[in-house]
Amino acid sequence: MSSEDAVREVAGRARAASHELATATRATKDAALHAMADALVASAADVLAANAEDVVRAEAAGTPANIVDRLRLDESRLEAMAQGLRDVAGLPDPVGEVLRGSTLANGLELRQVRVPFGVVGMIYEARPNVTADAAGICLKSGNAVLLRGSSSARSSNAAIVEAMRGAVGGSGLPEDVVQLVPGDTHDSVKALMRARGLVDVLIPRGGAGLIRSVVEESTVPVIETGVGNCHVYVDASADLEQALAVVLNSKTHRTSVCNAAESLLVHEDVADEFLPAVVEALQAAGVLIHGDSAFAEYDDVVPATDEDHAAEFLGLEISAAVVPDVEGAIAHIRRWSSGHTEAILARDQATIRRFVAAVDSAAVMVNASTRFTDGGEFGFGAEIGISTQKLHARGPMGLPEMTSSKYVVVGEGHVR
Amino acid sequence: MSSEDAVREVAGRARAASHELATATRATKDAALHAMADALVASAADVLAANAEDVVRAEAAGTPANIVDRLRLDESRLEAMAQGLRDVAGLPDPVGEVLRGSTLANGLELRQVRVPFGVVGMIYEARPNVTADAAGICLKSGNAVLLRGSSSARSSNAAIVEAMRGAVGGSGLPEDVVQLVPGDTHDSVKALMRARGLVDVLIPRGGAGLIRSVVEESTVPVIETGVGNCHVYVDASADLEQALAVVLNSKTHRTSVCNAAESLLVHEDVADEFLPAVVEALQAAGVLIHGDSAFAEYDDVVPATDEDHAAEFLGLEISAAVVPDVEGAIAHIRRWSSGHTEAILARDQATIRRFVAAVDSAAVMVNASTRFTDGGEFGFGAEIGISTQKLHARGPMGLPEMTSSKYVVVGEGHVR
Repeated sequence: MSSEDAVREVAGRARAASHELATATRATKDAALHAMADALVASAADVLAANAEDVVRAEAAGTPANIVDRLRLDESRLEAMAQGLRDVAGLPDPVGEVLRGSTLANGLELRQVRVPFGVVGMIYEARPNVTADAAGICLKSGNAVLLRGSSSARSSNAAIVEAMRGAVGGSGLPEDVVQLVPGDTHDSVKALMRARGLVDVLIPRGGAGLIRSVVEESTVPVIETGVGNCHVYVDASADLEQALAVVLNSKTHRTSVCNAAESLLVHEDVADEFLPAVVEALQAAGVLIHGDSAFAEYDDVVPATDEDHAAEFLGLEISAAVVPDVEGAIAHIRRWSSGHTEAILARDQATIRRFVAAVDSAAVMVNASTRFTDGGEFGFGAEIGISTQKLHARGPMGLPEMTSSKYVVVGEGHVR
Repeated sequence: MSSEDAVREVAGRARAASHELATATRATKDAALHAMADALVASAADVLAANAEDVVRAEAAGTPANIVDRLRLDESRLEAMAQGLRDVAGLPDPVGEVLRGSTLANGLELRQVRVPFGVVGMIYEARPNVTADAAGICLKSGNAVLLRGSSSARSSNAAIVEAMRGAVGGSGLPEDVVQLVPGDTHDSVKALMRARGLVDVLIPRGGAGLIRSVVEESTVPVIETGVGNCHVYVDASADLEQALAVVLNSKTHRTSVCNAAESLLVHEDVADEFLPAVVEALQAAGVLIHGDSAFAEYDDVVPATDEDHAAEFLGLEISAAVVPDVEGAIAHIRRWSSGHTEAILARDQATIRRFVAAVDSAAVMVNASTRFTDGGEFGFGAEIGISTQKLHARGPMGLPEMTSSKYVVVGEGHVR
């Protein structure tokens, strides 16, 4: 069987299973989620043995230590995955929520109701915990899921999915609501991207290259996630002590994540006062500054190129520039931002209003760290990714963002 | 300049203009809409002269009379276009609406606010009234629009856009929020579909072929609209007199529209009673029935092929079949429907619940005609199309569906 046929076959089974899942009650879905959690814990020996295979293979292939670390599971990570599934069981069911309702002039009763997408394809990189997270969020939102993880995690993912499928089947739902996409090569990803009509939505989670290739090649609708070239703008009206803390937190609290700051902009009126402090603090934290001419006057600051302004470093590096005013900051952000999160530090209300209105990103932070753009921080309870596109969902995506809607219109023989 | 460069140039100007439009007040936008309406009426002589050119060209090319009719404008159609713009001015502004808001445990204030998409590309077929409708809806929702109408309407569209741009400029907004896409060939459509980063959303409005080609080729996110293979299912529990009226209305009230019924399903328990009546009534209205073996026993019913079950006839034709029960109707609809609108005629509550839950279409009608799936009927005041996809918007799209959202998070130096 060709890769395309194999993928279309599992997608067809997902489609059939999705019909049953779409009308399952919350009680059934929550029972399945708890059973999946229990099964992961009960299968710990198998899952960890499979994971050890992946780790050995990755190390033999010379994979960098930080990537191997993301791949590695242990008892406590497995327990965290199980707890994640239990947490999702505790969240409200988005399916069936009435979004809008009214009685029309002619007596027709109109309701707009949340419904599942149907079949969701997830394409993601190394971390095997995404396998359980995505399966749990999709199941709760009534969607069958096709999981295409990194081939480097294939043994782990197979063991995790096997455990979860058994639990789903034991809870009275079709096992095929959770499936791995067969095949390790790009052909299987390609087949998934062309499975329009069988797959309703594709969500790529990973680096910019992966996401770009999915967006370019997919005929299935895509939700882009997680590329963050986030800016922090320090206005002349900012509390500079607060600004220093927010810049440092945004850049250094965790550097490998999409909501970390990658660019610093400073109003020229406070440059003389703020630059010495921020350069010193960032460098003390080990951050390499790619600065414009104002920043480059400081020791160990390297000149910023266009690539630096565009870069999502995901490490201890930041681009930095002095701007004449808030309009200069807005123009810089429009040119270089990926539209994830931008922050302003300011006390002047008119400046804040202007920045918030003019900056078109998924999240705009006022006197707060970029690191707050997160489903957990926003109180969503679960997050499948952070959308940086404007269609459908924008920002952290929780359970409601994993649904569509339909109109139900009730009459008594109404005609036009 | 190549077609691609020309399109990217206008898209770049639209992007720049969209920044100003995005933060314009409702008062400014409504004034522009009224000015656009007045300009259309004031320019009637120019617009109608341009339209006459299009009509002469279309007739010389042997265009079918019904298509020429859709192309043709007169004083009253022009006045209706102007009134449409005034009506949009009277609708609430979706931009700035707070969709969700809360104060997080740490004191951060979270708001999710509607914002415009930015730049919307409209690709549509002959009717020149779409040019004014789309410009009005996009302007009110804060979006710059790139209009790519049919080349057969190019003179009309140019005259309409010229009048509207002058009015927009006179109202203090940048003229470039309304632009025609340069070029008449498919190259310009192609360039629009590849203008990712400059164009935020593409909305194709037209036949299935147009929409499929946009979906396949576009790297800009697409909202699919308006392909309707709509089913009416008559259950054993239906009031058959009511059912007959709804079937007739759904099929014959207006045949060229996407919410017209294209397929009829009848429960076998009422086939002997209902089929003679419905066959007679449909045939009396001039409808050709493509029927299964039960229907084919009647005079002048032709046997239905798979193509007939899949067809969106958009004319006086219908496919028809007898099904064993509501599950048979659901299975038939899952196989053949385009996901636009399906109707059930029934009195049994359990059957209705099952149909409504299991049929996954943008609209499900209970004892009402399929013809009610319409932004005007739903009370939206304006409609840019009917989405048949699950991402972002589903069903009739009014002003709120022409927006995205962003999160605004306000703190006082919050860090993680």
